[in-house]
Amino acid sequence: MEALTGDEGNLAQRASRQGPAKVTIAQIAEAAGVSAATVSKVLNGRSEVSAATRQRVQTLLLERHYQRRASSGNAPPPVIDLVFPELDSAWAMEIVKGAVSAAARAGLTIALTSLSDSSGPQTWLEQICARGTRGIILLLSRLSDQEKAELWSRRLPFAVVDPRGEQDPSVTTVGATNWAGGLAATRHLIELGHRRIGVISGRPDLLCSRARMDGYRSAMEAAGLPLAPELMQWGDFGVDGGFREATAMLSLPERPTAIFAGNDLQAMGVLEAARVLHLRVPDGLSVVGFDDLPLARWTSPPLTTVRQPLAEMATTAVGLLLAQEPGERPEARSIELATTLVPRETTAPCR
Amino acid sequence: MEALTGDEGNLAQRASRQGPAKVTIAQIAEAAGVSAATVSKVLNGRSEVSAATRQRVQTLLLERHYQRRASSGNAPPPVIDLVFPELDSAWAMEIVKGAVSAAARAGLTIALTSLSDSSGPQTWLEQICARGTRGIILLLSRLSDQEKAELWSRRLPFAVVDPRGEQDPSVTTVGATNWAGGLAATRHLIELGHRRIGVISGRPDLLCSRARMDGYRSAMEAAGLPLAPELMQWGDFGVDGGFREATAMLSLPERPTAIFAGNDLQAMGVLEAARVLHLRVPDGLSVVGFDDLPLARWTSPPLTTVRQPLAEMATTAVGLLLAQEPGERPEARSIELATTLVPRETTAPCR
Repeated sequence: MEALTGDEGNLAQRASRQGPAKVTIAQIAEAAGVSAATVSKVLNGRSEVSAATRQRVQTLLLERHYQRRASSGNAPPPVIDLVFPELDSAWAMEIVKGAVSAAARAGLTIALTSLSDSSGPQTWLEQICARGTRGIILLLSRLSDQEKAELWSRRLPFAVVDPRGEQDPSVTTVGATNWAGGLAATRHLIELGHRRIGVISGRPDLLCSRARMDGYRSAMEAAGLPLAPELMQWGDFGVDGGFREATAMLSLPERPTAIFAGNDLQAMGVLEAARVLHLRVPDGLSVVGFDDLPLARWTSPPLTTVRQPLAEMATTAVGLLLAQEPGERPEARSIELATTLVPRETTAPCR
Repeated sequence: MEALTGDEGNLAQRASRQGPAKVTIAQIAEAAGVSAATVSKVLNGRSEVSAATRQRVQTLLLERHYQRRASSGNAPPPVIDLVFPELDSAWAMEIVKGAVSAAARAGLTIALTSLSDSSGPQTWLEQICARGTRGIILLLSRLSDQEKAELWSRRLPFAVVDPRGEQDPSVTTVGATNWAGGLAATRHLIELGHRRIGVISGRPDLLCSRARMDGYRSAMEAAGLPLAPELMQWGDFGVDGGFREATAMLSLPERPTAIFAGNDLQAMGVLEAARVLHLRVPDGLSVVGFDDLPLARWTSPPLTTVRQPLAEMATTAVGLLLAQEPGERPEARSIELATTLVPRETTAPCR
């Protein structure tokens, strides 16, 4: 990936190859019935513009494909922004590690925003735009049309890692083969002789949760096994949720002999539920997680899980950002990195 | 803490109260026998100055107490830098969470540097200075005199969280009461009737490791219990190290009935060693950790540990940074936040 070695000079060269922007700020200002200064304020994320004016200007910027001219004297700071819905769990740390490492190789720093911590009059996007950035990586998030328009009109490259919702053909995304991972996890349990297999996936509004659940469903159906609604639950990707759902499933009159947890944290909750209910793992219950976080090697016993290459996903996103021509509306790319089953000690033949 | 609400204007006002700097760049240049442009390059972290010249200029800047004039038109970007030796483990995530949250309240973003990922011709400090920052928080690190001089001459506030080595009276630090925590953990085990108690602390070159070990020592001595060298080991704050040291201790002819692990990750390794050796926790072995990371609630069984307020330590450091007059060599403050024992299910009376 050539772009990972790209530096400031390199980006400036690329920008200059694009020639001048086709639409000027003055033209947008005239069409919107405001001053050029107001259009500049909107572009720079200043807060002293009314919401109605901002909306009108943004719409015009988008409709007329305004592209900010690359200004040689005003290069953005050597920063790439990582935007999380919230910073919690080892999952986020793996993404951060991959991004910091890839950014460092390009001489850049990673700046972190947690949407749950954001406050003040400016939106997260206005704050980032006001300070400047080389590009934005969004995690587990969905972008509004308004946000996409703001990013494009400001010439800001962006990518979504682990996209939350439906595929958006206009946005570059990096994910993992969640469906194939769910399929592999469930097949592994079926091959061990399990027939009554529970699944606890993540929140149903996340694309990755639904893909893992569907992988489970396909594996069960392909093996001619019935789908029991009481054994198929949506969770929240947290340890507590895994504990709660597993406790309920394991208290059923006809309990499952194996549970596929939608991520490693939920799997930790399942292991704790088994311990509280005096079920030995793996003899009395087999458990499979998803992610292969560092802690998966160190649960008791070590967790069989599906490895999702989180750090590599972040590295790939940084590479795609740096490869984008600043200000060009990029040809969107959608990449899924492979998941792989990592058998450890929480799965055993059904007895 | 007034400073947490401080914004750009506020900082600029403060800077202007200090009046003009006493020593000029021209004077430093004359004394060093270089041009004023070269002194500026050193101040701005440019790489095109020879190491010898840089050293000579830095020494003069330090000796003559040069303070960069606050330039109103050139405010640093709204960023606070967090510098880790390496980004690994849930420990780092807790610090990051606290810092991101405190920074967001002040309208600032956290930028992350991992020293293990740093590369290229510039040092980490030069990279940060070239881009600008409101201040730097260093984690588990020791600053060289050269680095301190560079920070002071560039008017950059900084603080060290969880300082690595000897107390440095010229540097603001935020830590936790590690010694008291080690004492409390060991006392808890003694009160449960344990006499043969092992300890696995972190690396001996870290201040926090030594303080925890000394807390153990004091509790044992105060209770009139002998200190057995084979039960006192230095580890590496990682799960693998905890597993290795615990396996060795638990294979002794006269094995310990309880182990105080220097952090939660090491405690996870101890729990796994106990499982492999068919020792039940807490009936056959009591275990205490340190940190109270989120995962401590979810080990099997849930971990008794000493809570270290990591997020609050980061929040406090952000507050101290923002309270520093930029460019003033601050009165160094040294704060230790309290640790507290959190009893859960890995400790029980000695049988």
